[in-house]
Amino acid sequence: MQSEAHTLDEATGLVELGEGWYAGATHPAYANMAGPFGGVTAAALLNAVLIDPRRSADPIALTVNFCGAIAEGEFEIETKLQRGGKTTQHWSTELKQKGVVCATASAVCGARKPVWSHYPVKGPTAPPREGLAEMSKNGRPEWTRRYSFRFVEGGLDNYPRDDGLIHSARTLAYIQDAPERPLDFVSLAALADAFFVRIIHARGTFQPMATVSLTTYFHADADELVAIGATPLLGEADAAIFHNGFADQTSALWTPDGRLVANGVQITWYKE
Amino acid sequence: MQSEAHTLDEATGLVELGEGWYAGATHPAYANMAGPFGGVTAAALLNAVLIDPRRSADPIALTVNFCGAIAEGEFEIETKLQRGGKTTQHWSTELKQKGVVCATASAVCGARKPVWSHYPVKGPTAPPREGLAEMSKNGRPEWTRRYSFRFVEGGLDNYPRDDGLIHSARTLAYIQDAPERPLDFVSLAALADAFFVRIIHARGTFQPMATVSLTTYFHADADELVAIGATPLLGEADAAIFHNGFADQTSALWTPDGRLVANGVQITWYKE
Repeated sequence: MQSEAHTLDEATGLVELGEGWYAGATHPAYANMAGPFGGVTAAALLNAVLIDPRRSADPIALTVNFCGAIAEGEFEIETKLQRGGKTTQHWSTELKQKGVVCATASAVCGARKPVWSHYPVKGPTAPPREGLAEMSKNGRPEWTRRYSFRFVEGGLDNYPRDDGLIHSARTLAYIQDAPERPLDFVSLAALADAFFVRIIHARGTFQPMATVSLTTYFHADADELVAIGATPLLGEADAAIFHNGFADQTSALWTPDGRLVANGVQITWYKE
Repeated sequence: MQSEAHTLDEATGLVELGEGWYAGATHPAYANMAGPFGGVTAAALLNAVLIDPRRSADPIALTVNFCGAIAEGEFEIETKLQRGGKTTQHWSTELKQKGVVCATASAVCGARKPVWSHYPVKGPTAPPREGLAEMSKNGRPEWTRRYSFRFVEGGLDNYPRDDGLIHSARTLAYIQDAPERPLDFVSLAALADAFFVRIIHARGTFQPMATVSLTTYFHADADELVAIGATPLLGEADAAIFHNGFADQTSALWTPDGRLVANGVQITWYKE
């Protein structure tokens, strides 16, 4: 049986045009309301660093700034190794379409060592995934079909709501690539943005909204991710403030047995 | 009486050399163990955007990557307006010494509008500041003398400890510029990094450590900050994971009456 590339690998795949210069393209399977799902853009930007032969260690931090709409079609990514030290490498990347910057990112790679470690925050408790309903994808953007969502708390079955009530912004859900795919930094970079924008959960209504900037920290190295494999993750997301058109958002991705593999924040814009 | 510039303004002040090109210098008042306090570097990088005549709105998000040691003395900052839209502007900045990149940053500016707002997370409760002891600066780096720290929870009076115990990584403290200074984006950018690296609180011992990347979200516009003035802020900081040489850190800055003015995350490196 021939092995086929996972759709995420097709969508984030890049062709090297020169040192630090790559070509890619949007993929219809990850289309959002306007342009691609931000997570797949984040993953492509990180992938440009991951495949760069100058990279010396696993990624630790990724910040992606979504500067403007990305049109369907080709894009180029330029990576710049800003500084490489003994322990860390700092990268800046830009995604352009027809010479116009659509997204920028910074990535830090860092060499881990088996030193003192400590895990003060415990993973969320949740019932087994098997007993939870799969989120319906009816009427939702195409990219949602590339993930399995099983909500423990803060689901979206009644969205949009007309109850006029403000609900909790918090979500706890099992999230996994669909079809399943072993975890790696590419998939984690995308999963970190697979939470719906919190205003949807809090307000229950629809209005124009977008992620403006997304920061993700990776808390496992490549070998640890290989060992974790293709398990669903327990994802937590919440928000502290929605103020005059901008809202924050926190997220964390845990293995079901309580290992934090990534967490981070994003700031989102909303119109009204 | 002649009004004197606040030390923070001296330390973050820049001279324009050309469009998007500024000269600054480290300031001994904000010296850390090696190089300047990261918060003042973050504030200088943001200030380059704040004083840029092309800037159209208040900052919303700032990510600073600390790429390498900053030596005492002069530096240059280059700003690049990556993309300007109707609502947001995206900036990339680099801080260099003798042509070598020491820090990079991305900043997003955004126009707020009086739209639907919601504040689901309430500020921390704390006893009045007046009854709390000022943190001793004995044996601490120079920059700590530029701030007032009054700990409600998770203080550092017994640091370094020899008890061999792991304590909570959480801190709650009143923090303010010393001498006091009206809040603005420059001071908030620095205050967001004024929390001690969490490993100090958790482990109680000293080892080499550094902030690698710092992301701060601003939740007030310039006029709101003017109205808040020079009040001490209630700062919360915590960490979820210390794993093989890298640890995360969350922070939030609240007015004493419960208005969130900034929050964010950082990833820190530690050696052993």
